Amino acid sequence: MSHNTFGHLFRVTTWGESHGPALGCVVDGCPPGIRFTLKDIQDELDKRKPGQSRFVTQRREPDEVKVLSGVIADEDGETLISTGTPISMLIENVDQRSKDYGEIARQYRPGHADYAYDVKYGLRDHRGGGRSSARETAARVAAGAIARKIVPGLVVRGALVSMGTKSIDRANWDWDFIGSVENPFFTPDAASVQVFADYLDGIRKSGSSVGAVIEIVAEGVPAGLGAPIYAKLDQDIASNLMSINAVKGVEIGNGFEAARITGEENADEMRMGNDGQPIFLSNNAGGILGGISTGQDVIARFAVKPTSSILTPRKSIDKDGKDVDVMTKGRHDPCVGIRAVPIGEAMVACAIADHYLRHRGQTGRI
Amino acid sequence: MSHNTFGHLFRVTTWGESHGPALGCVVDGCPPGIRFTLKDIQDELDKRKPGQSRFVTQRREPDEVKVLSGVIADEDGETLISTGTPISMLIENVDQRSKDYGEIARQYRPGHADYAYDVKYGLRDHRGGGRSSARETAARVAAGAIARKIVPGLVVRGALVSMGTKSIDRANWDWDFIGSVENPFFTPDAASVQVFADYLDGIRKSGSSVGAVIEIVAEGVPAGLGAPIYAKLDQDIASNLMSINAVKGVEIGNGFEAARITGEENADEMRMGNDGQPIFLSNNAGGILGGISTGQDVIARFAVKPTSSILTPRKSIDKDGKDVDVMTKGRHDPCVGIRAVPIGEAMVACAIADHYLRHRGQTGRI
Amino acid sequence: MSHNTFGHLFRVTTWGESHGPALGCVVDGCPPGIRFTLKDIQDELDKRKPGQSRFVTQRREPDEVKVLSGVIADEDGETLISTGTPISMLIENVDQRSKDYGEIARQYRPGHADYAYDVKYGLRDHRGGGRSSARETAARVAAGAIARKIVPGLVVRGALVSMGTKSIDRANWDWDFIGSVENPFFTPDAASVQVFADYLDGIRKSGSSVGAVIEIVAEGVPAGLGAPIYAKLDQDIASNLMSINAVKGVEIGNGFEAARITGEENADEMRMGNDGQPIFLSNNAGGILGGISTGQDVIARFAVKPTSSILTPRKSIDKDGKDVDVMTKGRHDPCVGIRAVPIGEAMVACAIADHYLRHRGQTGRI
Amino acid sequence: MSHNTFGHLFRVTTWGESHGPALGCVVDGCPPGIRFTLKDIQDELDKRKPGQSRFVTQRREPDEVKVLSGVIADEDGETLISTGTPISMLIENVDQRSKDYGEIARQYRPGHADYAYDVKYGLRDHRGGGRSSARETAARVAAGAIARKIVPGLVVRGALVSMGTKSIDRANWDWDFIGSVENPFFTPDAASVQVFADYLDGIRKSGSSVGAVIEIVAEGVPAGLGAPIYAKLDQDIASNLMSINAVKGVEIGNGFEAARITGEENADEMRMGNDGQPIFLSNNAGGILGGISTGQDVIARFAVKPTSSILTPRKSIDKDGKDVDVMTKGRHDPCVGIRAVPIGEAMVACAIADHYLRHRGQTGRI
Repeated sequence: MSHNTFGHLFRVTTWGESHGPALGCVVDGCPPGIRFTLKDIQDELDKRKPGQSRFVTQRREPDEVKVLSGVIADEDGETLISTGTPISMLIENVDQRSKDYGEIARQYRPGHADYAYDVKYGLRDHRGGGRSSARETAARVAAGAIARKIVPGLVVRGALVSMGTKSIDRANWDWDFIGSVENPFFTPDAASVQVFADYLDGIRKSGSSVGAVIEIVAEGVPAGLGAPIYAKLDQDIASNLMSINAVKGVEIGNGFEAARITGEENADEMRMGNDGQPIFLSNNAGGILGGISTGQDVIARFAVKPTSSILTPRKSIDKDGKDVDVMTKGRHDPCVGIRAVPIGEAMVACAIADHYLRHRGQTGRI
Repeated sequence: MSHNTFGHLFRVTTWGESHGPALGCVVDGCPPGIRFTLKDIQDELDKRKPGQSRFVTQRREPDEVKVLSGVIADEDGETLISTGTPISMLIENVDQRSKDYGEIARQYRPGHADYAYDVKYGLRDHRGGGRSSARETAARVAAGAIARKIVPGLVVRGALVSMGTKSIDRANWDWDFIGSVENPFFTPDAASVQVFADYLDGIRKSGSSVGAVIEIVAEGVPAGLGAPIYAKLDQDIASNLMSINAVKGVEIGNGFEAARITGEENADEMRMGNDGQPIFLSNNAGGILGGISTGQDVIARFAVKPTSSILTPRKSIDKDGKDVDVMTKGRHDPCVGIRAVPIGEAMVACAIADHYLRHRGQTGRI
Repeated sequence: MSHNTFGHLFRVTTWGESHGPALGCVVDGCPPGIRFTLKDIQDELDKRKPGQSRFVTQRREPDEVKVLSGVIADEDGETLISTGTPISMLIENVDQRSKDYGEIARQYRPGHADYAYDVKYGLRDHRGGGRSSARETAARVAAGAIARKIVPGLVVRGALVSMGTKSIDRANWDWDFIGSVENPFFTPDAASVQVFADYLDGIRKSGSSVGAVIEIVAEGVPAGLGAPIYAKLDQDIASNLMSINAVKGVEIGNGFEAARITGEENADEMRMGNDGQPIFLSNNAGGILGGISTGQDVIARFAVKPTSSILTPRKSIDKDGKDVDVMTKGRHDPCVGIRAVPIGEAMVACAIADHYLRHRGQTGRI
Repeated sequence: MSHNTFGHLFRVTTWGESHGPALGCVVDGCPPGIRFTLKDIQDELDKRKPGQSRFVTQRREPDEVKVLSGVIADEDGETLISTGTPISMLIENVDQRSKDYGEIARQYRPGHADYAYDVKYGLRDHRGGGRSSARETAARVAAGAIARKIVPGLVVRGALVSMGTKSIDRANWDWDFIGSVENPFFTPDAASVQVFADYLDGIRKSGSSVGAVIEIVAEGVPAGLGAPIYAKLDQDIASNLMSINAVKGVEIGNGFEAARITGEENADEMRMGNDGQPIFLSNNAGGILGGISTGQDVIARFAVKPTSSILTPRKSIDKDGKDVDVMTKGRHDPCVGIRAVPIGEAMVACAIADHYLRHRGQTGRI
């Protein structure tokens, strides 16, 4: 993984800042003949689009994607077919609200990368978080929309499973509820909506913010993807998820719970199914053993920290080394973890697509 | 990261299986002029060596390292000096106890990668776990011993902080106790030794196994290492740690706890220190903000699952698709997490050394 | 080098086809604080722009570059300063003359990649050569304009030294003449202009085409860039030059001539200069020994084949496997080698910038 | 390509110096199930082994290869089967003749990398050329022996086509003659043996050296390998060949000749064959169009400079910046190009194997 590229055979390079004219990505290594529509990409982008409820930032961005290369149009005039050459996608920034960054430009916001940037680069684009802006993630989601088309039968879905001190009831898990218009949280538990809404309203009104845990489930992952060492499927999923802003932890399968239980409890037993395929009697492993997919659902979770852009004054320093108190105004998500759901899906889809091609390359067994 | 290589400028390629004649690694991209002794490497290897207490596998391996290239000897006859060319290191396998693998060769052990291997490759070296054997980690530890020398002032240390349902008391944390001869667990809490010993004796005698959580702390990491996206320092640390066998989760700083607290609680405040360096009033971030080191201690934790090699019979299938009951005999660690401590240290040291060189390459600011 | 990316620390990813809406590149790994203007890039692009004389294609493209990310504007409003994040550049395609590709879409033009594309991908964008179009090279030239700014004191210049059977007289070499308005050939020899013009007029009028040899000279390359093996500076220069369309051969220094002479004749002798720097008494090596720059001028040459798009009918086959005679109409360069001069410069500049950063990363000695 | 690694999916990392205990390589990404014997590898190594005639260095090295990992033995006890994990191979250095390097350690030999090494690294292993020693190429040949097995039907052969001012007569080309015991030159022209022998005896006796041109032909390369840009098959072949010590130029197909002829002369015409496969009426392209293989023989040539280790005193400087006269004693090849033949074959085989896997990965069309 290079500075702004991830993946080996299915490679994604993203570019762009929050307050420049546009952002985008180049998807390299896409197989030829993959068919998709602009709507396929736009639907994914719309999931993470800001401004859709009072619980996310009010920045208004249509996030309309343009595909600039790497495809030919099918005769229906709607379907695009990849040619195997790089697919460049571009999304314009529209709502770069002009404001006075004077103070923020000189102050290091606690919990932000401002200070680290200045030490690293000696200068920075202080507008809207620069390269660390959540807007960059739109490019990942666009790339993920293509990745989803590469592995036949692959379905990657995500859900918010906890927010701050509140969690869903897994007994109520309903994938279909996630896309519901009454569900601004990507929660799979209808009963949790009111709980999350009340909780987050309180957080928001107090000028605070809160973190979340997201779970991603990939169905239809063929057995055999990954490698025993250094190219483990779970390792690359973890790497991809940790590359999302504000992510501080990643788990595969039962994750940290595995450290608390015994070998008998943890190892997933097997029996032979009627269709000649093995049946696993549980899925603590999250679909990956020894770095290689087993054919079970691949399951990953990640923890998103609360945004540090809050209305409460906080102790910090400025560029001149003076102690200051910092308060971040502006439009911010009280829980950035909500919109992380489609981003996490995209990053998992990209990891799986990459490993699908790598596995086919090395072994020819797909 | 390629199949058996990790790192970008400080690159480590490992090779070898549990039951072949040897294992080793090639360290590429080491700066010239780095000075170290064979003893420096051997001391690290000795930490993860099997057979040192009743709580780890009884396989007897001297794990004696040979340095085959990439160095010249200093006049003292002991110090090696890197020349900037690849450093090849080799460790012979000595105690490859001959045994009958007949059954195991045909059965898929639950919780092992046996089935996944067969699906992926169509064949496998079933002896001792093949490439997934814990012996491979010796090569990482050797590479890590060199990585430690690259960043001036860097100190990377690890500790076991919990085992199964038992945890240390952080109030007792004492780094110096970890190397004590009375401490077979790499615990930093002297009071925990008896607790862990009793607990693990019970686990071991019942033919079971248990997981653990390891914490790695890197002091002396200069501010500025990493990048905002895709080459985040925390992302590469997570990737390196997830590449260790049996690891199912990784956290940076307060990790999953960050998802449970508010923005005010989580963001580390700053004040200016008397030495002109900023002081952080807490370290929830684990020394990394926006993917870039801040100069605070870098802190990571990882969860190791219990080994699936247990004496209790478990349901599984064999190569012919028949249901079988599997029991794994042989020499195994009841808690593989214990010996994961020096491995985790090595992987974190390698990630930091790599980013140190990358940061120097891009910015020239070190 | 990946499919559409080259370089390690200074990485360039290009995208776009001849007949899509735009083409462009993402420059990743640029150091922060590099200062340049849009005009710096545009001046390089203008050198390779089509339509500037009767000897190059009459396609009219302004080739106006937009910088979409990775920079902040200096106070003068003109200078851009790199921030260390990816620099995305975009060039719109304007003159995509609409025409009937019906026949060409089904026929394999001899000497073109049509057949190879169809075998590889199973489909292709047949308009204007698709990804193999010379338009893609505009993106390289834009990236090269930034690369030139990275190594202090670096000057990279190129010249056409032969065209078909005609060659320059090296005794007349004058770098200053290359930019002259009376010089449509990038020849360093004023006396050659009339010779080349007459020769190429004949070629053009007969509906034929001809090849060329280009020489690139890089001054100001610090000693020490490159590596003994696999990351040789000359190897990466050769790779970069061979990646240009229609290039069939590359030489470093005296190149193939070195195979014809003796060791005494070939090895460049040295003497100590008055300034404490060594003086080489010749430069057969082209400034590179054992893969590492010596501080002498780096010299490379490459051979460009004649374009296969000619008006003479040629034997071929079509998609249905039928024998056909193919004649390529349309706007084509009678000598594509002419416009290869700024492209070659850009590719050499990129290789040197990348190795400059890599050398600094590994050794810290710059 | 990293410092000591080449290839993307079929990756080779080499290590070792001339005067260390051993050298070797790690072959990563080999498909599982590839069958080969130790003899397959040894036969290739024996071709480049020193000491086989008076025309090559008299250093005595058995070059016996050991395979340390990545294989299981077939039931015949002789055939090795790759498991898909890294294959580590090791060759011991035997004849590291002890000698006084005192003077050479301080002097910069003209035409050698001594000076460049010292500038780059600040120190070097002066014994026997260190990492630049021709002994390193044994590791490439071993890797190439495995690469040859990956593409079904692939045959890669090489020949010396000129030495200094003497060339073969292509009308006499006979592949079978190359392995003849009466042929110490890898020449395909029996009539040239006496000419080369007389010529090289003269060179050798005068304490001089001479260069050579080598041609590599790969038959059985499937159409479709490579990519239009940056991952061109010819580009990676050129890069691989340029990474061989002393190589100063590379050509694909007719190479520099293409720059001298017209489009009609150069473009290879096609007709449909009776077997449904296209027939090319010539092969100026060297089997590669637009970076992608066409199914024709892939043809590459490279120029090897004369070794700079000659008995004639030459002007140079030493580490203290003093002018000196240098004469290189010791065992050296009067024409290093001879033993470059099997090395060139190996490098071309590795490039093709890598692209075979990459093509299968991206397109699934093999």
